Order: sequence, then C-alpha cells, then structure tokens
Amino acid sequence: MKSHVRLLLASVLAFVAGVAFTQGVTQTDPLPSWNEGAAKKAIVEFVRATTDKTSSKFVPPEARIATFDQDGTLWVEHPMYTQVVYCLDHVPAVVKAKPELANMEPFRTVLSGDREAISKLSTDDLLKVLAATMTGMSVDQFKIEVKNWLATARDPRWKRHYTELTYLPMLELLTYLRANGYKTYIVTGGGQDFVRVYAQEVYGIPPEQVVGTAGGVKYSYDQDGKPFLTKEPKLLLNDNNAGKPEGIHLMIGRRPYAAFGNSTGDRQMLEYTKAGDGERLAILLLHDDAKREYAYGPALGLPDTKVGAFTEPLYDEAKKQGWVVISMKSDWNRIFTFDK
Amino acid sequence: MKSHVRLLLASVLAFVAGVAFTQGVTQTDPLPSWNEGAAKKAIVEFVRATTDKTSSKFVPPEARIATFDQDGTLWVEHPMYTQVVYCLDHVPAVVKAKPELANMEPFRTVLSGDREAISKLSTDDLLKVLAATMTGMSVDQFKIEVKNWLATARDPRWKRHYTELTYLPMLELLTYLRANGYKTYIVTGGGQDFVRVYAQEVYGIPPEQVVGTAGGVKYSYDQDGKPFLTKEPKLLLNDNNAGKPEGIHLMIGRRPYAAFGNSTGDRQMLEYTKAGDGERLAILLLHDDAKREYAYGPALGLPDTKVGAFTEPLYDEAKKQGWVVISMKSDWNRIFTFDK
Repeated sequence: MKSHVRLLLASVLAFVAGVAFTQGVTQTDPLPSWNEGAAKKAIVEFVRATTDKTSSKFVPPEARIATFDQDGTLWVEHPMYTQVVYCLDHVPAVVKAKPELANMEPFRTVLSGDREAISKLSTDDLLKVLAATMTGMSVDQFKIEVKNWLATARDPRWKRHYTELTYLPMLELLTYLRANGYKTYIVTGGGQDFVRVYAQEVYGIPPEQVVGTAGGVKYSYDQDGKPFLTKEPKLLLNDNNAGKPEGIHLMIGRRPYAAFGNSTGDRQMLEYTKAGDGERLAILLLHDDAKREYAYGPALGLPDTKVGAFTEPLYDEAKKQGWVVISMKSDWNRIFTFDK
Repeated sequence: MKSHVRLLLASVLAFVAGVAFTQGVTQTDPLPSWNEGAAKKAIVEFVRATTDKTSSKFVPPEARIATFDQDGTLWVEHPMYTQVVYCLDHVPAVVKAKPELANMEPFRTVLSGDREAISKLSTDDLLKVLAATMTGMSVDQFKIEVKNWLATARDPRWKRHYTELTYLPMLELLTYLRANGYKTYIVTGGGQDFVRVYAQEVYGIPPEQVVGTAGGVKYSYDQDGKPFLTKEPKLLLNDNNAGKPEGIHLMIGRRPYAAFGNSTGDRQMLEYTKAGDGERLAILLLHDDAKREYAYGPALGLPDTKVGAFTEPLYDEAKKQGWVVISMKSDWNRIFTFDK
C-alpha cells in the first residue's frame, strides 16, 4: 500500500472511530441528576419525538423554542428573591449619594437592618427600593454593580454565591435541550437587565435570550458627545402572569414548544405553550424538599406563599391540563453542583 | 485491495474532494453584486479583521451582532412604505366590519382612492389608519392577513411582489455576515409583527431577530378556554431615532458591531454602534440611482424628503464620524434579483 493511501486509510479509521465515540457519548445519560421516573421519561420522550424526522411530532429545528422561568425554577427563590437582596444591599450606596433618603421610608427601615421589619415592607415600598437601586444609572454602570455584587455576596443558608444556587438537574436539562437543537430562553419576572448580567456564564444563555421585567432606557450623550443609555423608572413589560406570554410574543415572536415554571406567575406561560398545535411540554416544579432545599405551596398543603406563590389551584390545573410535575424530592438525586 | 477498503478509500476521496470544493466556493466572491470600491473593501476588511483570531480587532462569535434597518436599506421604501400600502389596502375590510367609519375621516379619503388626497393625509390621520388595520385582531389572524396580502399585492412601478423589491447586494451581505458568525437582526421603524411574517423567508432572519415598532398584546381566552393574544392599540416601542438603540437594548441587550441604515431614523443606531469599543462598522446607504431605483435626499441636494428622510446633515455626520457611505449607483452592479 502506498504511503498516501495508508495515510488516507488512517484518517478514515480515525473518522470512523470518532463517529463511534460520538455515538457512545450520546448513549450515556444526558440527565444523570434525574432519577428514573415519570418526569424524566416525559422529558426524554418529548425530545425524542420532536427531533425524530420520521415522527408525526417532529418539530423543525428553527421552531424549537424552550422557555424557563428563573426564580424557583432554575435557582433558589427562598427566603427572598436574589434580586430583592441585591436591591436591599444597594440601599446604603443610594442613600450615600442622596443623604435626604436616610430618614425617609422605606429607606430608613432598610438601613435599620431589622430583618423582620424589612420582610414586612409592602409591595409599594419594595417597588420604591427597586426603582431607587435599579434605575437612574447607565446601563453599563448597572452591569458593573451587579457583577461586583454577585462576586462577593453570599446567601445566608449555604454561604454560597447566589449563582451557585442553581439546580444542577435544570442545568443538565438546558444543555440536553440545546444539544437537541432547542433554543433556550429565560422568561423571568425578575429584571431583564439583572439576569442578563450572568445568564451566559451561569446558564449558557446569551443576553438576547433573556426575557424579563423590563424598564425603558433613555438615549443621550455625555460631555464628549459619546452616546449612552440610562435606565429609566418606566415599566415597559411586567413579565409575570399574562405578561409572560405577552413578553414571549414581544421578544421571541413565536410560541414555545416547551415551558418550565414553578409558580402562579408561570401559569399563563404554561397554558399558552401547552395550547399550541402538535407536541408541547409544560412542566411545573414542585418544591417539596425541605431538607435539601425548601418545601412550600401545595407540598405543605398551603394555599399560597408570599414568595413564589405556587398555589393548590395551580397544582390542580397542572393535573387537569396534562402538565408534568417534577418533585424535587423524588425526581432529583442531586440538587446543587456542590451536593455530594 | 479488498472491497471494504476500496469503499473506505472512495469515501475518503469524496471527502477530500468535498473539502477542496468547499474551499473553492469560499474563495469565490461572496458579494458578486458589489462593484470593487471603498464600500465593498471596508465591509470585507471589517469581516476579515473581526473574525481573525490573530487580529487585535477580533470579536468573539457570540458578540457578533449586525443590525439592519429595513425600509430603504433592505428593500424599496419609495414612493410609500410597504406597510402603509398594506394598511391603506386594508381599510375597505375594516370599514366593512364597522360601516360607521365610511363617512369618517381619514377613512373616507382612503376609500375615495384619490392618490393625491391620500398622500396629503397628516401623520395623525395615518396613525388612525395604522391603528385600525394593525390592532384589534388576534396575533394569528394578523399573520394570515399579511401573508395573504404579500402573496397578491404588487407595487405600481415594477409590478412585482413587494418581497421581490429587496436589494440583492444586501441579501448577499446578510448571507456573508452570517457565514462569518454574525447574528443578523432587522431593527426597523416598521411594525415588528408585520416584518416578522416574512423575514425568515425573505431575509433568512427568524422572528426573534426582528426588532421593530411594537404594540402591546393582550392575553385572554376564547369560549373553549383556549388562550390567545390580541394586538392592542398601545405603543410599547417606537423603533425610530433614539428608539433604535433603546430597542436594541430591550430586545438584544448588547451593542452591535455593525449597523446599516439609510435615513435620519437610523442616525442614533449608527452612532451607538460606532461608539462601541474596538472595531465597529456603520454604513449609510445613499439612494442616488433614479434610473434603477430612486434618487432622493442628498443625492438631489434636497434638505429632506417625506419618506426615508435622509438629510444633508446626516450625510455630513457620516463623513465626520467615519461611517461608510454606499452609493447604489456606483457600488452596486445589480440592485434586484430580477435585474439582468
């Protein structure tokens, strides 16, 4: 055999081995943190059916959109939304810039550090804190402040960075869906600009695939004539409840094939997704693991909870509408990357 | 040589030939409708520098965002925006559903068919026509109506479907940028929902990469409990002038590396793009070809035009800011696909 033929053959063999290796990898479990059970089975079967060209449920790659709520679906939302913690932590800096706020409510209560009083602040008061800490600065400045805070702040229970409190099974699911041609979006009631700061690094989701509660920005010029954008206290999209399908239409323009949520704020997104033609997957995550995470809502037989309101009626709707319910306790063998 | 070895060798040779063929294709001109000149050179050099890993101007693939105005940049905007033609054409259907409008202005004028009177309608009157023909129906119904109209309507000059009046050199440019890892977006003053109907088919741009003037939608249920979205007469984003960078922030969340426009409505998008760090490309298309398309704005020494206002001061700013100016007349050897 001539040497160039030998070389060609070697390439072929390497190529064939590569294919075999790739096939081997695809055959390993893409969802190792998920226990075998109805939830995992429903997900894997959905992916198989919608990506199999010979299936009547096949979905063309460009239409494969999957949307994920964030708080309580991709990461921990108890005892307080991470973004609210960020805003409360930023009150001292805001008061330093505007000292007259120190004696005004709700800033005085926040500055007192009295956790119980803070937890009793009204929604209106919290909105004042959010407006003061999330608007008025340039888009670039806000990004830097969030980045710096995430690099240092730690949650009170696990003493971990907040970005470590993401659910490993959901990270596996994001990767698995993307490997099967799904474009993954976050559709969050949280601030769009806030989540965009870390979504790429934490979830592998680029800023343009984060839909969230969004405020207006204002275009203007600095003293050197350089243009910049300022965050304005003007609400464009409240990305909760009916705002979720409305936001999906605004930002994506097509109906998802799969949607994942955990609270009443996700109800309409799940309904809207499930109501589409063909095969659709709607999934509700049940927080029923007080030991490894938290138990709230229907897991405790509670009608409602202040944070991440997942009510009994929602649980009933899930069963009625054929949504898949994930039990953190029984469906997940690991919750966090740092779990043994 | 055994037969399976022969088979393997044949595959290898086919593979090698394929590579050579692919390389041959890449070496052919990706912009054949562009004449050699400053504009083409600037574009090719920008793409080369931002995609060459050894270049100081290298841009990582995930940050490669290119934004295109539509009317007058990707397709013809004279003598009237296509979307306005659509709305005027839809007035009879609206009046049929609400006969009381027949004797009310501006609907009476539109129904008269008097082209001169129609062209003199005020902006307020046109907005009334737009609201009546673009809102009040479901998102799905609107999509069907636009699709049907595009399949039948023809422009008065070339007697072609409006979707044929796209500029071939710009279609080549979109393909060229995408082949080099750029994510291409439309950022249009036109209606987001309108452009999304045909953007994939006409420009290869999916709905989620169309940013435009956007109205609110309302989530509700039909009599069978099935959810749907209705287009509301509520403006969320006026995607013109400062609204373009503001819309880019809302919908994309990062600054483009390349932006393409043709009128004062694109000024802020071009400024914002060019003001970013590193290598940025801002391009202004000059309509100076009365024979093959239209000549207006600075090409005629006019201070302004009603449609696609491209003013002398904008032309001056382009030169001052280092924007590249494309002359349709000298830079393009073909304008439409149907040109010889």
